[in-house]
Amino acid sequence: MAERNYRLTVAYDGVAYSGFQIQADCPTIQGELEKALAALTGQFVRVHGAGRTDAGVHAQGQVISFQAEWRHPLEDLQRGMNALLPRDIAVRDAEWAPEGFHARYSAVSREYLYNLYIAPIREPLMDRYAHRLASAPAWEAMEQAAAMLVREGDFAAFGQATAGQSTTRTVWQAGWRARSLPWALEQPVEMREFAIVANGFLRGMVRRIVGTLIDVGLGALDPEEFGQILQERDIRRASPPAPACGLVLWRVNY
Amino acid sequence: MAERNYRLTVAYDGVAYSGFQIQADCPTIQGELEKALAALTGQFVRVHGAGRTDAGVHAQGQVISFQAEWRHPLEDLQRGMNALLPRDIAVRDAEWAPEGFHARYSAVSREYLYNLYIAPIREPLMDRYAHRLASAPAWEAMEQAAAMLVREGDFAAFGQATAGQSTTRTVWQAGWRARSLPWALEQPVEMREFAIVANGFLRGMVRRIVGTLIDVGLGALDPEEFGQILQERDIRRASPPAPACGLVLWRVNY
Repeated sequence: MAERNYRLTVAYDGVAYSGFQIQADCPTIQGELEKALAALTGQFVRVHGAGRTDAGVHAQGQVISFQAEWRHPLEDLQRGMNALLPRDIAVRDAEWAPEGFHARYSAVSREYLYNLYIAPIREPLMDRYAHRLASAPAWEAMEQAAAMLVREGDFAAFGQATAGQSTTRTVWQAGWRARSLPWALEQPVEMREFAIVANGFLRGMVRRIVGTLIDVGLGALDPEEFGQILQERDIRRASPPAPACGLVLWRVNY
Repeated sequence: MAERNYRLTVAYDGVAYSGFQIQADCPTIQGELEKALAALTGQFVRVHGAGRTDAGVHAQGQVISFQAEWRHPLEDLQRGMNALLPRDIAVRDAEWAPEGFHARYSAVSREYLYNLYIAPIREPLMDRYAHRLASAPAWEAMEQAAAMLVREGDFAAFGQATAGQSTTRTVWQAGWRARSLPWALEQPVEMREFAIVANGFLRGMVRRIVGTLIDVGLGALDPEEFGQILQERDIRRASPPAPACGLVLWRVNY
């Protein structure tokens, strides 16, 4: 039986994993997916992900592709994987893909969300999926700075490319919006999310952007300085990356 | 310096703990709180909790009381504890309490929430704080059965009392309500919470009630049978407890 090309949409809570990409001796999302596929198909299957999320980063709409032989219905592949995968990883959707489809190279755009919550004391029931600020930042300044990201340009200020590759990316959308709380808390807790859509992202780019935007919100930088950092393309001028917990690979478009 | 009585409001993500109550060789909420207090005050401090939540159960408004000597401002006690406690436990509020105050015995009522979400496939970003049903249960039948709980009566059908103690409790409120999703998911995912308020709860009571209500919702029992189970006070007739992940000790009133 011939191999076919598969496209799966995968969600995960990234806290327990050393990122998407497979590594020896560390639990990774790719490692868990390949283990489940090997158990199901009896073959070694190499999985390609649309985005190589870092350690601790979550995903709701990660997309993976792979070639495999599977003689049963597609639903059984999905069901079998969900039975074998740890509870914090799930295959949300499975489909056949055209022969040339590749989760990473065929992707047209990716959307990441970064969750921020404002509370004087940490909220253990929110801390896993959002980064806390003790008091409200200057949202307008942060929004003004975020708007400067929407362009085709060199984003070397905020991330690294694979050796020898371009650091030019096109950002189509970048901004902050209110977000409803996951719990009906009485305390004056507020939550916002940063949504950013681009054709692709450099390594660490979203978290370094958010870290630098937070410094704008806290008054350590003004929006003009944010613009200069972006222009100067020197990663040492950017703020440290915001913590992984707040970041979610939300969607990949093809 | 004399000892004083303290009242703290504590929140936690219960997944990593073998429940509230201290045990040898297992991480517990009480154990972590007493460890932090010992480090801060230099004394052994016995902590009393309003509700002894089971392994894996969460809390937003657990209340604890204890006697201790502390010569610094109250805010420093709270700040110090939050610095020493693991990230998944936090002291949300700290105050002096009158001499006779006891977190458990002084409590007038407790409110628990149980989160249920409906989705054909598990959602890893929701699974930690909610129990999944694959398809929508009959909410009306569940609501009808829940209404039978609102009374003063013997709840031995759903839980155990400490040896020799009464199984009579007064439930003031018990019902299902819609709840907004913690994420803006596209999928037709629905979420509801069961809220129950009583003067006190037997061991395992809320989860056994929810497990039995789910069986009503899935058609394995009808509301009349739920009423019979309640009347017959035989715990073997109740359904198994619903999983711990969905349960949150939400508030304690004094």
